[in-house]
Parts: sequence; structure tokens; C-alpha cells
Amino acid sequence: MDSVHPAGGAMLTVTDVRLTPVLVADPPLLNTQGLHQPYTPRLIIEVETEDGTVGVGETYGDGKYLELAGPLAARLRGRGVGDLNGLFTLADGVEVDGRRVDAALDVGGLRGAQTADKLRLSVVSGFEVACLDALGKALGLPVHALLGGKVRDAVEYSGYLFYKYAGHPDGVAAEEDGWGAALDPRGVVAQARALARRYGFRSFKLKGGVFPPEEEIAAVRALAAAFPGAPLRLDPNGAWSVETSVKVAEELADVLEYLEDPALGTPAMAEVAARTPVPLATNMCVTTFEEIPEAFGKEAVRVVLSDHHYWGGLRRTRELAAVCRTFGVDVSMHSNTHLGISLAAMTHVAATVPGLRHACDTHYPWQTEDVLTERLRFAHGCVTVSDAPGLGVELDRDRLDALHRRWLDEDFAALRERDDAAAMRRAEPEWVTPAVPRW
Amino acid sequence: MDSVHPAGGAMLTVTDVRLTPVLVADPPLLNTQGLHQPYTPRLIIEVETEDGTVGVGETYGDGKYLELAGPLAARLRGRGVGDLNGLFTLADGVEVDGRRVDAALDVGGLRGAQTADKLRLSVVSGFEVACLDALGKALGLPVHALLGGKVRDAVEYSGYLFYKYAGHPDGVAAEEDGWGAALDPRGVVAQARALARRYGFRSFKLKGGVFPPEEEIAAVRALAAAFPGAPLRLDPNGAWSVETSVKVAEELADVLEYLEDPALGTPAMAEVAARTPVPLATNMCVTTFEEIPEAFGKEAVRVVLSDHHYWGGLRRTRELAAVCRTFGVDVSMHSNTHLGISLAAMTHVAATVPGLRHACDTHYPWQTEDVLTERLRFAHGCVTVSDAPGLGVELDRDRLDALHRRWLDEDFAALRERDDAAAMRRAEPEWVTPAVPRW
Repeated sequence: MDSVHPAGGAMLTVTDVRLTPVLVADPPLLNTQGLHQPYTPRLIIEVETEDGTVGVGETYGDGKYLELAGPLAARLRGRGVGDLNGLFTLADGVEVDGRRVDAALDVGGLRGAQTADKLRLSVVSGFEVACLDALGKALGLPVHALLGGKVRDAVEYSGYLFYKYAGHPDGVAAEEDGWGAALDPRGVVAQARALARRYGFRSFKLKGGVFPPEEEIAAVRALAAAFPGAPLRLDPNGAWSVETSVKVAEELADVLEYLEDPALGTPAMAEVAARTPVPLATNMCVTTFEEIPEAFGKEAVRVVLSDHHYWGGLRRTRELAAVCRTFGVDVSMHSNTHLGISLAAMTHVAATVPGLRHACDTHYPWQTEDVLTERLRFAHGCVTVSDAPGLGVELDRDRLDALHRRWLDEDFAALRERDDAAAMRRAEPEWVTPAVPRW
Repeated sequence: MDSVHPAGGAMLTVTDVRLTPVLVADPPLLNTQGLHQPYTPRLIIEVETEDGTVGVGETYGDGKYLELAGPLAARLRGRGVGDLNGLFTLADGVEVDGRRVDAALDVGGLRGAQTADKLRLSVVSGFEVACLDALGKALGLPVHALLGGKVRDAVEYSGYLFYKYAGHPDGVAAEEDGWGAALDPRGVVAQARALARRYGFRSFKLKGGVFPPEEEIAAVRALAAAFPGAPLRLDPNGAWSVETSVKVAEELADVLEYLEDPALGTPAMAEVAARTPVPLATNMCVTTFEEIPEAFGKEAVRVVLSDHHYWGGLRRTRELAAVCRTFGVDVSMHSNTHLGISLAAMTHVAATVPGLRHACDTHYPWQTEDVLTERLRFAHGCVTVSDAPGLGVELDRDRLDALHRRWLDEDFAALRERDDAAAMRRAEPEWVTPAVPRW
């Protein structure tokens, strides 16, 4: 009964889709699987309609995403820019080199299981945001209005703390980030103070799984002492055993808002959840709709951190929120390295989700480069929801070109694929991605 | 963090909301709780915006709905017509006579448990549809486009068969329906043939729970013989015990598409489901998001029949579909007595839901009266999805006025509340609503 249709008469037709991969400066941030490279790939998507309106979107930029984005862009031309339900059917039919992409690709990365479906959805999300931006501009409506309207005027984000080096370990010339090193509790607190001073964050998340749990417990304790009462979170990206997870939860029960992905996989998370009153959050064991029934059935998590990129866009994120609400599970937002387009998109959708009780995650303060004429700003840890048509952001074509030229530069060709282990080996040549559980 | 906001700058403001209760002719249709009255109450909602655009919606019209609709209409004035997420917060705050409506009202009616929340959502749904209609007209977009675009050009409905009398038992002058009586297998098959001839329906649902199960089994068998291979459904509205349900399912396993609400309540439905391979559908044990976790956890149903009126509108219906999809449960559409506005609304939302595998229910062929200038039409059992702005229907003010005058007429005052048992007592003075399970 289903099929793909051109949209109704009043709908603007997509006349052009431009895909621009870029390499963006990234500080030397540590996680359990390695180190951020000096530059990270992102894909900027522009959707142009017959009346000349241009909408922008952003998603992951590694090769496997680009490979899918090309054919999807070709299929989108000639269709209605508001035909958002059809985007998924359109993407389902995408073939690369004459074959459907349908193999399971990887498990255990920082983004959770990577399947062909999830890959497709990550690409669709960038197109969906670009279409929403164009549609909003064409209709004179902000993106939040296309999602049914904001229920709040500002969206709160938390300060995202990282263990980090002062600079990248090799000679690659990324911008100096100016934040210095953070490799112990003192460094983490100093970083939190600086982020709070500059952006007003009132809650903090520490990316853990980098040092032995005792050191990370000490860092969270130091944060609690420095910011009494502030909601705190620790996220080791599944690096711990069930026993270690339960032990850390016990030791930090009085200061943690939630513990994020202490152990890998729904069965382990469910076991931890059954043994601690500390709420567990995830962006690893629940990253697709398919993973929800088992996780909710086992009561493995109390907060799902949505990343609109891999859930398939802003409208799917709202659907995820509806599923979570139905089952009494909270929803908040995950972040991976991203630019201002995605921060604007996150802010619009978060503004429309009722009952948001946790500040969202964002890497944005770590990104010194952007493709916008004006960076988004945080005040008191919040981003004000734009009422301008579309996302309310403007592409700076010169900046986009400069970051694209870097992507084209053969000197940086190796960085077109994010590889935290490769980056880590420049600091520690013997480094191998740790087996899980690491502790 | 949540609050109610006026929408962004580009959003049209609601300047007026008109509520018009009507009494609509209804044939003498039988169900397990009695008989349809000669006239049934509905509420027509008109939302007017500052530029003079008028959107229409429709919902239940009994007193308890009207009581809530008045204050909600007052609160909607001055707000953005596209502020659809805010409607729910707005409705939550509605007070009647200075008190919040929050008592549990009733259980076991044909619509499932009736709580204050569900009552509120039923009222909101009429407002939401009216706002979507107005917004679509103002933007030049069909309602399906406001829901992300249609994924099909036509929505299929099933022929809704009823046991019925030839005429109403007392002297109240409702229009003659011309369908005659249907009180045995032969009458049911004749009705199905007439409906198929006139509207092209290719699947049929029989409203059961009226006669002992053996008679209804015989009716379904007769339908199967008359329409070989057509999907058939039987819905006794929870009138049967678990044992009876299992027995009927066994006897009709080879011809039933699904069995709808054979027994009352999730535990009984789950027990039936565990004992038969026939899929169970419901519009009684899953009628709110709160009821989903238990029902899905117990695998009580394989099809949820959404009624956008009580789920809170078209966008909530899409959310329900997302929840169902996540758990591998099918979704289709329930119907109660309704007019063309609601049929248009059902068609728009159904057009946008991916993976719809069952023809939707509609009472519309039984409604000889409507408030539209032009009735919606069925071809091959389907309603074509309108691409005109808004719902694509036009209010006929003369007809609306005539049906409203009937509602105002003191002679019909008793019919302002739907009461199937009262109607039945005119035919059978000793009638009392049967205890459940009836068989």
C-alpha cells in the first residue's frame, strides 16, 4: 500500500542538493577508545527549492556517510521539500555501486551498534534538517513551529567536560584551543570553572572511561565540591564491568544526576540498573527504535539520550520522545562533535519536547570553527530558541569553502575518517583499542 | 522548565473559536450495550485566525465534552494557531466551575476506560484538527503535508456491518435509513453486499456482542462464503469470557483478519492472545498512552485501532503509530459515529502513517446527514487523500444551523447525551446493560 509520492500541489520542489564535506578543528579530547584527531569530518547539506530558498543540514562526514548521501541527494531532486515522511522510503531504496547497503557494519563504537539502517538514518537526518530549514524559510516559520511549536523559550545545555591534552600529540597544525590540559581532578574542575564562566553552564558531564574508575570518582567528587548541588554525570562509554559500574554508582550516588552507559549492552546495563538506585542513561544501548523493546522491557535505562543524527532527524526524535514518555523513561540529548547547524536543530526540537528534565549535551564549545556567519551563543547555559524562519542560522560560504578546501587537501586525507585509535597512537604508539570491559 | 507560550512571530493568532453542538441522525444500530439513538450529539469546532481563515474540527458532543470545550476555546483565543504542542498544556489547565476535571469517570463503556485525561484529549483533538485545517489553509498546504506528507494517495476503509432494526423503536422521526433490518446471517450478508455495491468495500467488520456467539459465528461464516478471501473482523466490544473468546477464535481462525476486543481488559485479552493464533485488535484496552506498557508487555494485542478523537488528535495518532511500530504492533483506525470533518481528518493522518496494513473503520456510510457542502466519497472502498489546503472540506453553514437547531430543540433534549441503554429500553423496556462477560 505504501509508495513514494511527489507531494501535494502547494509544495515547493527541490531543484538542487549540494553536499560539502568539511574538516573541522577538534581539540585533543580523550575517551575510552582513544583521542579526537586534530580535524574531524562533517558533511554540510544544502537543499535548494524552485523559488531559490536554501536550507542547510549537517551530519557525520566519514566516507560511509558520503557514499550514501550522494545517491540520496540525486533522488531528492524533483521531490517536494516538505515530503518528509517520504525521505525514509527514499533512503531505503538508495544503492551504492548497484547494491543496497544492508550489512551490519560494526558494534561497540562510541555511537553504539552501527547497522546499515542506522547509517542511512544518520544521512537522512542531515537531509531532513535541511528540508525543514528550507520549508520554514519558504513558509516564514521557525523550525520549531513545523514541529508543532516550542513549549519553552530556551533550551538548557550542560557543560561537557573532557580529559584532554594541552595540544595534539603530533605536528598537525590544528588551532590552539587555549583550554590547556585536564588529566586529573584539578584539571577537570578548572575546565568546568572556565566553561561555567564563559557559558553559564549549571550542570556538567564528564567523559570518562579514560582513567581507572578511582581517578574519575575523585574528579566527580571534586566537581561536586566545586559546584555544590549542580547536576553531575559521568559517561565511561561502556568501559566498565557490571561490578565496577555498581561500585562507582554506589560511591557517587549522592551527587550523580545519572550515570551514562557504565557498561556495554542492554543485559549488562539492566543488571547494573537492578543493583543501584542511580538512574542510568544511554546513547549506546538504545540508539535505534529496534533496541527499545528489550531495553525498556528489562528496565535497563531511565534516560535515553537522543542524537537526532542517528535517530533519523528531528521528527523521529519527537517520536522517540513519545515512545519514552509512554514508558516513563526520560529523554534528553546526546552530542557528538558538531557545528552550529546541528546545535540549532537540537535546540529547535528540544524546545518542542514536553517534560524535558535534563540539560542536553553539546560539544559546541569545543568547536572553534563553524560554517555560520554568526555562532550560536549560550547564556546561563541556555540557547535561546530562534523564532526566525527556518533554523535561524546563516551559512558563511567563505568559511564553508575554507573548511572544504582542508577536506580536499591531500595532506589531511587520512583525517577524512574519524579514527580515535589512530590519533591516540600518535601519543602512545603501543595503543590498541581496549577490550571491554576495560575495568 | 515547561510553560505555555505564544508562538513565534510568523504564526497567525486565533481571534475566535466557535463551538456548535449538533444532533445528527443515526440509524438503529445494535451493540452489546444497547442501541444507537435516533440522533447522536457531535460538537463542531471552528477556529478563526486574524486573517479571517477558518478551520474546522469535530469531536464528541455529549455534555461532559461541551463543558470542557468552552473554557478551552476561551484560552485558545489570542494564541498562535500553529502552537499545537501548547494545546495540551492549555487543556491541562482547563477548569470547570473553578475545579480541575480530574476524577476517573467510568470504565467499561464502548470507548474503554474514561478518565478525565482522556476526556480532555477528546476535546483537544477537535481543536487540533481545526487548528491544522486553519494552518493548512493559511499556508496553502494540505493537512497531510503538515504531518510530513502523504505516503499513499488513497486510504482504504472497511465496510462496517451492524446488526440493526429496520427503524427506530419509538416515534422519534429520524431520517429513514433505507437499509432495512439485519438480525441474522442473511441480513448481515445483504447489508455487506449493499455496502460493497455502493462504496466498493473489500473488507468487512461486524459489530458483534449482540447475539449469542454461535449466531455471530454463523454470520461471519456467511460473509466468508459471500466474499471469499475478503479480510473479515468481528468486534463484540469485550462481551465474551476468555473461554468464549478462545472458542470463537478457533472456529473462525481461517477467515478472520483479526478479532477485536473479544474480552474486556488487558489481562483477559492477554490470556486470549496466548491461546489463539488469531491476531487480537483493540480500541478498548489500549485507548491511552498510559495503557500501552502493560498491554504490550503482556503481548495482549497485535493491532491498536487508533481513534484520533481520544488519542488527542492527528499528531498524537502519529506518535501512537511510532510507539506501535517500535514494538512490532500494527496500527489501524477505530471509528465511532462521526461526520465528514472527522473522516477527512482520519484520511489525512492515515495517509502519512507508514506501513498501514489494515483497512480503517468508519461509520460514515451510516451518517445520512453532514455539515459539509459536499460529502466525502468512497471509491473501491477508499477515500482519495485531498491535496487542497487544509482538510479539503467546506462547512455548509445552513446544514450546520439546521442540525444545531435540532440540538437546541427541547423535544430532543434527552438525546444530547448518547445513551445506548436508554434507546434500547424503548425497544425492550426490561433492558439493562448486560454484565460482562455476557457470554
